[in-house]
Amino acid sequence: MRNRIAVVLLTALLSAAAHADEGMWTFDNVPTQRIAEQYGVKIDQPWLDRVRLATVRLADCTASFVSEEGLILTNHHCITRCLAENSTKEQSLLDDGFIARNRDNEISCPTQVADVLVAMTDITAKISAATEGLDEKAANEARKQARTRLEQTCESETGLKCQTVSLYNGGQYFLYQYRRYTDVRLVFAPEAGIAAFGGDPDNFQFPRWCLDMAFLRAYENGAPVAISEPLRINFAGPAAGELVFVSGHPGSTDRLLTVSQLQVLRDTVMPQSLLRASELRGRYIQFSKQGDAERRIVADTLSGLENGIKVRRKLLDALLNEDLMQAKREAEAALRTAAAKDPTLANLGDPWAEITSAVKAASDTELDYTFLEGGAGFNSQLFRMARAIWRAAEERSKPNEQRLREYTDASLPRLRQQLAASAPIYPELETLTLSFGFERMREWLGPDHPVVRQLLTSDSPDGLAQKLVQNTRLTDPTERLKWWDASIEALRASDEPFIQLAREVDQTARRLRKQREDEIDAVITDAEERIARARFALFGTEVYPDATFTLRLNFGTVQGWLERGQQIKPFTRLETAFARATGEAPFAIPSSWQEKRERLNPDTPFNLSTNNDIVGGNSGSPLLNAQGEIVGLIFDGNIHSISGSYGFDPVMNRSVAVHPAIMQTALEQVYQAQSLLNEINAR
Amino acid sequence: MRNRIAVVLLTALLSAAAHADEGMWTFDNVPTQRIAEQYGVKIDQPWLDRVRLATVRLADCTASFVSEEGLILTNHHCITRCLAENSTKEQSLLDDGFIARNRDNEISCPTQVADVLVAMTDITAKISAATEGLDEKAANEARKQARTRLEQTCESETGLKCQTVSLYNGGQYFLYQYRRYTDVRLVFAPEAGIAAFGGDPDNFQFPRWCLDMAFLRAYENGAPVAISEPLRINFAGPAAGELVFVSGHPGSTDRLLTVSQLQVLRDTVMPQSLLRASELRGRYIQFSKQGDAERRIVADTLSGLENGIKVRRKLLDALLNEDLMQAKREAEAALRTAAAKDPTLANLGDPWAEITSAVKAASDTELDYTFLEGGAGFNSQLFRMARAIWRAAEERSKPNEQRLREYTDASLPRLRQQLAASAPIYPELETLTLSFGFERMREWLGPDHPVVRQLLTSDSPDGLAQKLVQNTRLTDPTERLKWWDASIEALRASDEPFIQLAREVDQTARRLRKQREDEIDAVITDAEERIARARFALFGTEVYPDATFTLRLNFGTVQGWLERGQQIKPFTRLETAFARATGEAPFAIPSSWQEKRERLNPDTPFNLSTNNDIVGGNSGSPLLNAQGEIVGLIFDGNIHSISGSYGFDPVMNRSVAVHPAIMQTALEQVYQAQSLLNEINAR
Repeated sequence: MRNRIAVVLLTALLSAAAHADEGMWTFDNVPTQRIAEQYGVKIDQPWLDRVRLATVRLADCTASFVSEEGLILTNHHCITRCLAENSTKEQSLLDDGFIARNRDNEISCPTQVADVLVAMTDITAKISAATEGLDEKAANEARKQARTRLEQTCESETGLKCQTVSLYNGGQYFLYQYRRYTDVRLVFAPEAGIAAFGGDPDNFQFPRWCLDMAFLRAYENGAPVAISEPLRINFAGPAAGELVFVSGHPGSTDRLLTVSQLQVLRDTVMPQSLLRASELRGRYIQFSKQGDAERRIVADTLSGLENGIKVRRKLLDALLNEDLMQAKREAEAALRTAAAKDPTLANLGDPWAEITSAVKAASDTELDYTFLEGGAGFNSQLFRMARAIWRAAEERSKPNEQRLREYTDASLPRLRQQLAASAPIYPELETLTLSFGFERMREWLGPDHPVVRQLLTSDSPDGLAQKLVQNTRLTDPTERLKWWDASIEALRASDEPFIQLAREVDQTARRLRKQREDEIDAVITDAEERIARARFALFGTEVYPDATFTLRLNFGTVQGWLERGQQIKPFTRLETAFARATGEAPFAIPSSWQEKRERLNPDTPFNLSTNNDIVGGNSGSPLLNAQGEIVGLIFDGNIHSISGSYGFDPVMNRSVAVHPAIMQTALEQVYQAQSLLNEINAR
Repeated sequence: MRNRIAVVLLTALLSAAAHADEGMWTFDNVPTQRIAEQYGVKIDQPWLDRVRLATVRLADCTASFVSEEGLILTNHHCITRCLAENSTKEQSLLDDGFIARNRDNEISCPTQVADVLVAMTDITAKISAATEGLDEKAANEARKQARTRLEQTCESETGLKCQTVSLYNGGQYFLYQYRRYTDVRLVFAPEAGIAAFGGDPDNFQFPRWCLDMAFLRAYENGAPVAISEPLRINFAGPAAGELVFVSGHPGSTDRLLTVSQLQVLRDTVMPQSLLRASELRGRYIQFSKQGDAERRIVADTLSGLENGIKVRRKLLDALLNEDLMQAKREAEAALRTAAAKDPTLANLGDPWAEITSAVKAASDTELDYTFLEGGAGFNSQLFRMARAIWRAAEERSKPNEQRLREYTDASLPRLRQQLAASAPIYPELETLTLSFGFERMREWLGPDHPVVRQLLTSDSPDGLAQKLVQNTRLTDPTERLKWWDASIEALRASDEPFIQLAREVDQTARRLRKQREDEIDAVITDAEERIARARFALFGTEVYPDATFTLRLNFGTVQGWLERGQQIKPFTRLETAFARATGEAPFAIPSSWQEKRERLNPDTPFNLSTNNDIVGGNSGSPLLNAQGEIVGLIFDGNIHSISGSYGFDPVMNRSVAVHPAIMQTALEQVYQAQSLLNEINAR
């Protein structure tokens, strides 16, 4: 595999066209010509518009409208937060699943949103005009101000949610307009036992047997949202080899990073974050063994953490692959050579060297930044809320354009929504994570660091964490909103412990943030824009931008792959799930399925694999056939897909989806949710 | 610092002579000439013999005889295992400390040994003769057999403990003869609160304030061992800049490894072991928070683990230092070039390339090896004992020379001593570590690995661990000795759960071991011997061998260093310890000291730093002046000393010792142990 990755990367980076099925294409730049040539299928603008308007962006996942009454299909693992928010120590919707037998029983997901991309405008020229002739630091400031201004104007004029988007690492800027639904309710979720069958051990594995599906519903003014053209589900699913599309929001890839940026990831960012995450995992696991209540309250958080660990472990492996790094070096050298020969790029300078200097400079304050501004030292929901309250008050006193980007007028409603949500906050878990953060901050910054001394003069990490959590009232949303609405003077005088803490460390944290933005980010952004300019000059838009959690389309086919000489077939069947079960979590199949086992068709297709180019954020994406019908529900990639962050490997990289047939079986025969099926099919 | 390390390494590796104060010299090759030239101090053979015969090797530390009645001075952290073995859930000698007010109160350290090196014989020619003309695999086998034979003959003839030692990575072989004492008793240990003041946060830091001292006593036939020439303690301590020596047993360094071996450490060994250790740390910490009993039973294990994490984190940092790696590459290239030009090395071949191939080949089975033979999958004292019982029975049926090296006749008594020790084994801790091992084995080897399937068909990792621990009787030493003495047939039929488990996985584990020894280790050993030959041909023995937990002497001076522009002074004082205390562990000073505070001289020197070249294993080493008097007790290095594993940095690398003055104050004024002082001074 090693050499293969190398070759592929070279191809991707050096040639004008990416590999056949590679690419996360923005909807304004889908290579329809290539699709037509390669697969004889014509994708036209109405097809693209229809798919775009039925694709939904959730807080950190993708989804799609599947009924005219606002029904949303996504993954179970995309709505576990909603399940946790509606659970208690005593009862877990994660364990038990949830079915709303009628509209009145649908329950709120208080921190969820559902966005639909309704318009995209190229604003590259406007951003360029705003930064023209300025030095890096001033340009960075001007760019942020221009983005805030454009967003605010757009929101005022349209009433839509407006976000500026940087594509091709600053090569293009777009203004995206979303219709946003903030009243999102839970309709259906199976038990975690079947939704995440195999748990962390099977995560990113295939063959696989996960019913990783769930339904939400978007409401507006207390009524379900009317959707004119929802996607139709084709319960027969696709054939092996069939052309399939994924419409969704890949979260983040790093395919365009320079070699020095990749080296920092490899040598510093990944190892350090993995060490912290691994220890926290150990603390969570041991905590979860104290009893059933403890297991329940940590389950969702733990599984998110474990997913992150697996991803970063494999990313680190990829970065440690000397062949991949060598290919990146060669590709970068080739781009630099080609750029040097192009007379239109005479003013390019050496952005690669500038990035190298900037990342080196960043390493001096990396630990301080990570713990104090990045939040690793204050690992707690309550602290994050308190910091948001404190900073929002400070920022609101400034003109909109001069604020930190996450406190602009366009951003405040979402922050308020999160503070207002009545999701449970467990003191024992907050104490655990806070104590962990303090302890590691003391370890990594040293006991003599000024902030460590300030916080731990007479307290142990545990003692300080307990004191804060015992005395806070921020677990109550009413209390949070009270402080959210309070004056800056009232906050300055507040003896709410977390607001005090946020206040006390904020000068240091803000100084680190400012320094990072002015001296590091500004340089990198400027240099990246010039690299993007070189790439456009040489390749045009025949390449695609790195993933940025914005809407993309990609195409591929249903297929397995060859793993160490063994052919992996692209479909799994229900029967094999039962055969794999040990009876112990995470390999225990819930009783709802055990009881119906005899009546179910053992040959029902369960999961499938395709070679679509996806990444985290694509979870919940509809897998579509040429007619734009749903023939699968993306929920994972195989283990080789993780290194896709740095380059797509067409031979090994596979996405993994739930087959529609198992969804139908589940709804019809296991959960008796015929009304949902009727709603979906009612067209 | 980056460039400095680079230059130093080049100097060390390329020039005939190491840097002035660098070097861990075997006692047969101490550079007395250089010491005389550099410091005007003449070290003669009687000095060396006297120091050697008063230096003691413990199970994993160094110590020294300080009275004619077998009193042994070492570090507190070298005897914490003995403290734990004599503690219970209810009461911890780690917390409380221990003073034997008379001989009868001295308590056994059941798994401790004390060795004194009485003779050293060069056996290089004998080993060479045994392997002459054989291929790598056969030579490896013949070498092991020759070592076992030489050890056995020596033990039979002398009654001493005989160990063959590979120096210069196979460039020399020696037979070392030790007088071994297996009845070692605890005399004095302060509370961990003062012995390890600052705990993990301050570990490897300086300035420092740790009373990391303890006394043991060696017994023979129920009476204290008579020592003719114990070391004298000079309680005034050394002056700044004074020449000082460290006599001790540095555990392991990797200064002679090839670049490809260092890369494997950097890319695979260190990250993987750190991730596992970090998670286990999290589990231990969370476990310790469940209550006082839990905190007590995990304290010693946790602090050992945390020490290992800090060491490996800094080793990884060193390996990720591109300047260091570049220096290693250049040094290797220079050695290869020089070797190629030397006609006496015409038959050298390309051992560097052979090692590169071997370490690449090893990576294919690395995970299997680590979890199944290396024991990461069966992380438990009880499993290790069961495996020792099972393998010893199998091995005893073979001729001595053909056994695995750890089961030769010379090795069995030490194994038996460990099995017979009545140290407490805590079921809850065994369950924790076993469950962790099973869970990570399933994660890293995958749920479909044959051994994972075999073990976890119907059990969860937790369930299996609990079942094993609940049903075992191996927590009882009598039971362990019963099985140790049992026939192989009885063991084959045994339903003792851990023996069953050891038996069930042993074929796979042994196969991995055999493959590793025949195909990887044999190649590497052979190649390393040739590299050592080249080094001798070019540099003679003006270089020193890597540390191997054998006796070494090094020299240096009392000095601080310059840390980011700030001069660190080489001595700390008692007063500053009180100023640093927060009242919360690990920064809480025990009440024994608090109560006496007013009566103690605040200026009493506490710890000191020197530029001696030491490493783990040197803990407990006497720091000696030119007269061979103890002027300090080595217990740590500064943070920069950790990278000393790959190359000594004379500018930053410092060792850290307990000052004799604080020992005197402690014994006299805090612990009222005047009789111990009298015994020490009685000459």
